[in-house]
Amino acid sequence: MATEIERKFLVANDGWRAAAGRGVRMVQGYFESGICTAPPPTLRVRIAGERAFLTVKGRPSGVSRSEFEYEIPVADAEAMLLEFCGTRIVEKIRYTFPAGDGLFWEVDEYFKLNAGLFTAEIELPAEETAFVRPDWLGAEVSGDPRYTNGALSRNPYTLWRD
Amino acid sequence: MATEIERKFLVANDGWRAAAGRGVRMVQGYFESGICTAPPPTLRVRIAGERAFLTVKGRPSGVSRSEFEYEIPVADAEAMLLEFCGTRIVEKIRYTFPAGDGLFWEVDEYFKLNAGLFTAEIELPAEETAFVRPDWLGAEVSGDPRYTNGALSRNPYTLWRD
Repeated sequence: MATEIERKFLVANDGWRAAAGRGVRMVQGYFESGICTAPPPTLRVRIAGERAFLTVKGRPSGVSRSEFEYEIPVADAEAMLLEFCGTRIVEKIRYTFPAGDGLFWEVDEYFKLNAGLFTAEIELPAEETAFVRPDWLGAEVSGDPRYTNGALSRNPYTLWRD
Repeated sequence: MATEIERKFLVANDGWRAAAGRGVRMVQGYFESGICTAPPPTLRVRIAGERAFLTVKGRPSGVSRSEFEYEIPVADAEAMLLEFCGTRIVEKIRYTFPAGDGLFWEVDEYFKLNAGLFTAEIELPAEETAFVRPDWLGAEVSGDPRYTNGALSRNPYTLWRD
Protein backbone atom coordinates (compact mmCIF):
# COMPACT_ATOMS: atom_id res chain seq x y z
CA MET A 1 0.00 0.00 0.00
CA ALA A 2 1.12 3.54 -0.75
CA THR A 3 -0.37 6.91 0.13
CA GLU A 4 -0.30 9.27 -2.82
CA ILE A 5 0.14 13.00 -2.29
CA GLU A 6 -0.33 15.05 -5.44
CA ARG A 7 -1.74 18.27 -6.78
CA LYS A 8 -3.30 18.76 -10.19
CA PHE A 9 -3.39 21.77 -12.57
CA LEU A 10 -4.73 22.71 -15.95
CA VAL A 11 -2.21 23.40 -18.71
CA ALA A 12 -2.22 26.89 -20.15
CA ASN A 13 -0.04 26.37 -23.25
CA ASP A 14 2.36 24.03 -25.07
CA GLY A 15 5.54 25.11 -23.29
CA TRP A 16 5.91 21.75 -21.55
CA ARG A 17 6.32 19.77 -24.78
CA ALA A 18 9.98 20.58 -25.30
CA ALA A 19 10.89 18.67 -22.13
CA ALA A 20 8.27 15.99 -22.51
CA GLY A 21 9.67 13.33 -24.84
CA ARG A 22 7.46 10.78 -26.54
CA GLY A 23 4.90 9.71 -23.91
CA VAL A 24 3.24 6.38 -23.25
CA ARG A 25 -0.30 5.66 -24.45
CA MET A 26 -2.70 4.62 -21.69
CA VAL A 27 -6.16 3.09 -21.70
CA GLN A 28 -7.98 3.15 -18.36
CA GLY A 29 -11.31 1.79 -17.29
CA TYR A 30 -13.36 2.12 -14.11
CA PHE A 31 -15.59 -0.62 -12.90
CA GLU A 32 -19.30 0.14 -12.91
CA SER A 33 -20.46 0.70 -9.36
CA GLY A 34 -23.95 2.13 -9.81
CA ILE A 35 -25.62 4.67 -7.57
CA CYS A 36 -24.05 4.84 -4.15
CA THR A 37 -24.91 6.89 -1.10
CA ALA A 38 -21.32 6.72 0.15
CA PRO A 39 -18.63 6.79 -2.56
CA PRO A 40 -16.91 3.41 -2.70
CA PRO A 41 -13.20 3.11 -3.40
CA THR A 42 -12.37 3.53 -7.05
CA LEU A 43 -11.23 0.35 -8.74
CA ARG A 44 -9.14 1.00 -11.83
CA VAL A 45 -7.60 -1.23 -14.45
CA ARG A 46 -4.87 0.45 -16.48
CA ILE A 47 -2.86 -0.52 -19.51
CA ALA A 48 0.25 1.66 -19.64
CA GLY A 49 2.29 0.84 -22.69
CA GLU A 50 3.44 -2.76 -22.39
CA ARG A 51 2.36 -3.10 -18.76
CA ALA A 52 -0.92 -3.24 -16.89
CA PHE A 53 -2.09 -2.49 -13.35
CA LEU A 54 -5.07 -3.00 -11.10
CA THR A 55 -5.49 -0.19 -8.59
CA VAL A 56 -7.80 0.44 -5.65
CA LYS A 57 -7.96 4.08 -4.58
CA GLY A 58 -9.55 5.28 -1.38
CA ARG A 59 -11.69 8.37 -0.89
CA PRO A 60 -9.79 11.61 -1.29
CA SER A 61 -8.83 13.43 1.92
CA GLY A 62 -7.46 16.84 0.92
CA VAL A 63 -4.82 16.10 -1.73
CA SER A 64 -4.06 12.65 -0.27
CA ARG A 65 -5.73 9.32 -0.84
CA SER A 66 -4.73 5.76 -0.14
CA GLU A 67 -3.76 3.65 -3.13
CA PHE A 68 -3.16 -0.05 -3.59
CA GLU A 69 -1.64 -0.93 -6.96
CA TYR A 70 -0.71 -4.31 -8.40
CA GLU A 71 0.86 -5.18 -11.72
CA ILE A 72 -1.25 -7.67 -13.66
CA PRO A 73 -0.98 -9.38 -17.06
CA VAL A 74 -2.00 -7.13 -19.96
CA ALA A 75 -4.38 -9.86 -21.17
CA ASP A 76 -6.22 -9.69 -17.83
CA ALA A 77 -6.50 -5.93 -18.13
CA GLU A 78 -7.89 -6.20 -21.65
CA ALA A 79 -10.44 -8.79 -20.52
CA MET A 80 -11.55 -6.65 -17.58
CA LEU A 81 -11.85 -3.52 -19.72
CA LEU A 82 -14.10 -5.47 -22.06
CA GLU A 83 -16.19 -7.26 -19.43
CA PHE A 84 -16.53 -4.65 -16.69
CA CYS A 85 -15.85 -1.14 -17.88
CA GLY A 86 -18.40 -0.52 -20.63
CA THR A 87 -18.12 3.10 -21.72
CA ARG A 88 -16.18 4.10 -18.63
CA ILE A 89 -12.83 4.15 -20.39
CA VAL A 90 -10.41 7.05 -20.43
CA GLU A 91 -7.68 7.24 -23.05
CA LYS A 92 -4.72 9.54 -22.65
CA ILE A 93 -1.03 9.91 -23.27
CA ARG A 94 1.08 10.62 -20.25
CA TYR A 95 4.28 12.59 -20.46
CA THR A 96 6.69 12.43 -17.55
CA PHE A 97 9.64 14.73 -17.08
CA PRO A 98 11.68 16.37 -14.31
CA ALA A 99 10.17 19.19 -12.31
CA GLY A 100 13.39 20.00 -10.41
CA ASP A 101 14.37 18.98 -6.87
CA GLY A 102 13.92 15.32 -7.80
CA LEU A 103 10.23 15.85 -8.59
CA PHE A 104 8.45 15.04 -11.84
CA TRP A 105 5.63 16.43 -13.91
CA GLU A 106 3.11 14.11 -15.44
CA VAL A 107 1.21 15.80 -18.21
CA ASP A 108 -1.80 13.89 -19.52
CA GLU A 109 -3.22 14.55 -22.96
CA TYR A 110 -6.72 13.12 -23.28
CA PHE A 111 -8.49 11.67 -26.31
CA LYS A 112 -11.92 10.54 -27.48
CA LEU A 113 -14.67 12.10 -25.36
CA ASN A 114 -12.07 13.92 -23.26
CA ALA A 115 -10.22 15.40 -26.25
CA GLY A 116 -8.98 18.91 -25.62
CA LEU A 117 -8.19 18.36 -21.99
CA PHE A 118 -4.65 18.37 -20.67
CA THR A 119 -3.68 18.08 -17.04
CA ALA A 120 -0.37 18.24 -15.22
CA GLU A 121 0.32 16.41 -12.03
CA ILE A 122 3.15 16.42 -9.61
CA GLU A 123 3.65 14.00 -6.79
CA LEU A 124 5.05 15.53 -3.63
CA PRO A 125 6.73 14.00 -0.59
CA ALA A 126 4.50 16.08 1.69
CA GLU A 127 1.42 18.28 1.23
CA GLU A 128 3.36 21.45 2.02
CA THR A 129 6.36 20.74 -0.28
CA ALA A 130 7.26 23.76 -2.41
CA PHE A 131 7.93 23.35 -6.15
CA VAL A 132 8.76 25.49 -9.16
CA ARG A 133 5.67 26.55 -11.14
CA PRO A 134 6.60 26.58 -14.81
CA ASP A 135 5.07 29.11 -17.17
CA TRP A 136 2.82 26.56 -18.80
CA LEU A 137 1.12 25.71 -15.57
CA GLY A 138 -2.55 26.68 -15.42
CA ALA A 139 -5.12 26.86 -12.63
CA GLU A 140 -5.02 24.35 -9.85
CA VAL A 141 -7.87 21.86 -9.94
CA SER A 142 -6.69 19.56 -7.16
CA GLY A 143 -9.94 19.94 -5.28
CA ASP A 144 -12.25 19.72 -8.32
CA PRO A 145 -13.72 16.22 -8.47
CA ARG A 146 -14.60 16.61 -12.18
CA TYR A 147 -10.95 16.14 -13.12
CA THR A 148 -10.37 12.79 -11.50
CA ASN A 149 -10.07 10.16 -14.19
CA GLY A 150 -12.90 8.23 -12.59
CA ALA A 151 -15.16 11.27 -13.01
CA LEU A 152 -13.89 11.87 -16.56
CA SER A 153 -14.90 8.33 -17.45
CA ARG A 154 -18.49 9.07 -16.34
CA ASN A 155 -18.80 12.71 -17.36
CA PRO A 156 -16.25 13.38 -20.11
CA TYR A 157 -14.77 16.77 -20.80
CA THR A 158 -16.34 17.34 -24.22
CA LEU A 159 -19.81 17.01 -22.67
CA TRP A 160 -19.30 19.63 -19.96
CA ARG A 161 -21.43 22.76 -20.19
CA ASP A 162 -19.34 25.58 -18.73
CA MET B 1 -7.65 -14.62 -15.66
CA ALA B 2 -9.37 -17.90 -14.86
CA THR B 3 -12.94 -19.05 -15.40
CA GLU B 4 -14.24 -20.89 -12.36
CA ILE B 5 -16.71 -23.73 -12.73
CA GLU B 6 -18.14 -24.95 -9.46
CA ARG B 7 -21.25 -26.18 -7.72
CA LYS B 8 -22.26 -25.53 -4.14
CA PHE B 9 -24.22 -27.62 -1.59
CA LEU B 10 -25.37 -27.44 1.98
CA VAL B 11 -23.84 -29.88 4.44
CA ALA B 12 -26.24 -32.34 6.11
CA ASN B 13 -23.99 -33.77 8.86
CA ASP B 14 -20.45 -34.02 10.22
CA GLY B 15 -19.33 -36.99 8.15
CA TRP B 16 -16.88 -34.90 6.17
CA ARG B 17 -14.75 -34.00 9.20
CA ALA B 18 -12.83 -37.27 9.29
CA ALA B 19 -11.25 -36.48 5.94
CA ALA B 20 -10.97 -32.75 6.48
CA GLY B 21 -7.79 -32.10 8.47
CA ARG B 22 -7.17 -28.82 10.24
CA GLY B 23 -8.42 -26.08 7.91
CA VAL B 24 -7.17 -22.58 7.23
CA ARG B 25 -8.85 -19.57 8.81
CA MET B 26 -10.06 -16.95 6.32
CA VAL B 27 -11.25 -13.37 6.66
CA GLN B 28 -12.94 -11.92 3.57
CA GLY B 29 -14.31 -8.48 2.86
CA TYR B 30 -16.35 -7.03 0.02
CA PHE B 31 -16.00 -3.47 -1.04
CA GLU B 32 -19.03 -1.26 -0.52
CA SER B 33 -20.68 -0.60 -3.83
CA GLY B 34 -24.07 0.84 -2.83
CA ILE B 35 -27.32 0.38 -4.68
CA CYS B 36 -26.78 -0.63 -8.29
CA THR B 37 -29.22 -1.20 -11.11
CA ALA B 38 -26.83 -3.59 -12.83
CA PRO B 39 -24.71 -5.76 -10.53
CA PRO B 40 -21.07 -4.72 -10.78
CA PRO B 41 -18.26 -7.24 -10.56
CA THR B 42 -17.56 -8.32 -7.01
CA LEU B 43 -14.26 -7.11 -5.66
CA ARG B 44 -12.96 -9.23 -2.82
CA VAL B 45 -9.96 -9.01 -0.53
CA ARG B 46 -9.12 -12.25 1.23
CA ILE B 47 -6.68 -13.23 3.94
CA ALA B 48 -6.18 -17.00 3.81
CA GLY B 49 -3.83 -18.12 6.53
CA GLU B 50 -0.47 -16.50 5.87
CA ARG B 51 -1.39 -15.26 2.40
CA ALA B 52 -3.72 -12.65 0.95
CA PHE B 53 -5.49 -12.11 -2.37
CA LEU B 54 -7.40 -9.47 -4.25
CA THR B 55 -10.04 -10.94 -6.54
CA VAL B 56 -12.41 -9.52 -9.13
CA LYS B 57 -15.33 -11.80 -9.97
CA GLY B 58 -17.67 -11.29 -12.90
CA ARG B 59 -21.42 -11.79 -12.92
CA PRO B 60 -22.45 -15.43 -12.59
CA SER B 61 -23.56 -17.20 -15.76
CA GLY B 62 -25.02 -20.57 -14.73
CA VAL B 63 -22.36 -22.14 -12.47
CA SER B 64 -19.53 -20.27 -14.22
CA ARG B 65 -18.15 -16.81 -13.65
CA SER B 66 -14.96 -15.07 -14.65
CA GLU B 67 -12.40 -14.51 -11.95
CA PHE B 68 -9.23 -12.47 -11.76
CA GLU B 69 -7.14 -13.16 -8.69
CA TYR B 70 -3.86 -11.64 -7.54
CA GLU B 71 -1.76 -12.37 -4.50
CA ILE B 72 -1.09 -9.25 -2.45
CA PRO B 73 0.76 -8.46 0.79
CA VAL B 74 -1.19 -9.39 3.91
CA ALA B 75 -0.64 -5.86 5.26
CA ASP B 76 -2.41 -4.46 2.19
CA ALA B 77 -5.33 -6.82 2.72
CA GLU B 78 -5.62 -5.81 6.36
CA ALA B 79 -5.57 -2.12 5.43
CA MET B 80 -8.25 -2.61 2.76
CA LEU B 81 -10.48 -4.63 5.09
CA LEU B 82 -10.26 -1.78 7.59
CA GLU B 83 -10.68 1.11 5.15
CA PHE B 84 -13.15 -0.27 2.63
CA CYS B 85 -15.11 -3.21 3.93
CA GLY B 86 -16.95 -1.90 6.99
CA THR B 87 -19.29 -4.61 8.22
CA ARG B 88 -19.08 -6.56 4.97
CA ILE B 89 -16.66 -9.12 6.30
CA VAL B 90 -17.15 -12.88 6.20
CA GLU B 91 -15.14 -15.13 8.47
CA LYS B 92 -14.90 -18.85 7.87
CA ILE B 93 -12.61 -21.83 8.06
CA ARG B 94 -12.10 -23.72 4.84
CA TYR B 95 -11.38 -27.41 4.80
CA THR B 96 -10.01 -28.92 1.61
CA PHE B 97 -9.78 -32.64 0.91
CA PRO B 98 -9.96 -35.10 -1.98
CA ALA B 99 -13.30 -35.81 -3.61
CA GLY B 100 -11.97 -38.61 -5.85
CA ASP B 101 -11.02 -38.46 -9.54
CA GLY B 102 -8.52 -35.71 -8.76
CA LEU B 103 -11.28 -33.40 -7.51
CA PHE B 104 -11.46 -31.68 -4.12
CA TRP B 105 -14.12 -30.69 -1.65
CA GLU B 106 -13.92 -27.34 0.02
CA VAL B 107 -16.08 -27.22 3.12
CA ASP B 108 -16.54 -23.79 4.67
CA GLU B 109 -17.53 -23.37 8.28
CA TYR B 110 -18.78 -19.84 8.94
CA PHE B 111 -18.52 -17.71 12.07
CA LYS B 112 -19.85 -14.49 13.59
CA LEU B 113 -23.09 -13.42 11.90
CA ASN B 114 -22.94 -16.47 9.62
CA ALA B 115 -22.42 -18.97 12.45
CA GLY B 116 -24.25 -22.22 11.87
CA LEU B 117 -23.76 -22.24 8.13
CA PHE B 118 -21.57 -24.79 6.41
CA THR B 119 -21.17 -25.12 2.68
CA ALA B 120 -19.29 -27.58 0.51
CA GLU B 121 -17.88 -26.67 -2.86
CA ILE B 122 -16.29 -28.64 -5.59
CA GLU B 123 -14.54 -27.22 -8.59
CA LEU B 124 -15.13 -29.13 -11.79
CA PRO B 125 -13.27 -29.16 -15.11
CA ALA B 126 -16.58 -28.82 -16.99
CA GLU B 127 -20.19 -28.08 -16.05
CA GLU B 128 -21.30 -31.63 -16.85
CA THR B 129 -18.49 -33.45 -14.99
CA ALA B 130 -19.84 -36.27 -12.80
CA PHE B 131 -18.61 -36.67 -9.21
CA VAL B 132 -19.24 -38.88 -6.19
CA ARG B 133 -21.83 -37.44 -3.80
CA PRO B 134 -20.78 -38.31 -0.26
CA ASP B 135 -23.39 -39.02 2.38
CA TRP B 136 -22.83 -35.74 4.15
CA LEU B 137 -23.73 -33.73 1.10
CA GLY B 138 -26.91 -31.69 1.46
CA ALA B 139 -29.12 -29.80 -0.97
CA GLU B 140 -27.54 -28.02 -3.91
CA VAL B 141 -27.62 -24.24 -3.63
CA SER B 142 -25.48 -23.43 -6.67
CA GLY B 143 -28.17 -21.20 -8.11
CA ASP B 144 -29.16 -19.50 -4.85
CA PRO B 145 -27.57 -16.07 -4.71
CA ARG B 146 -27.98 -15.86 -0.91
CA TYR B 147 -25.10 -18.26 -0.46
CA THR B 148 -22.46 -16.34 -2.30
CA ASN B 149 -19.97 -14.91 0.14
CA GLY B 150 -20.68 -11.45 -1.21
CA ALA B 151 -24.36 -11.88 -0.32
CA LEU B 152 -23.49 -13.40 3.07
CA SER B 153 -21.46 -10.31 3.87
CA ARG B 154 -24.54 -8.12 3.24
CA ASN B 155 -27.29 -10.39 4.51
CA PRO B 156 -25.72 -12.86 6.95
CA TYR B 157 -27.14 -16.28 7.66
CA THR B 158 -28.19 -15.68 11.29
CA LEU B 159 -30.45 -12.83 10.15
CA TRP B 160 -32.38 -14.83 7.55
CA ARG B 161 -36.08 -15.39 8.22
CA ASP B 162 -36.92 -18.76 6.70
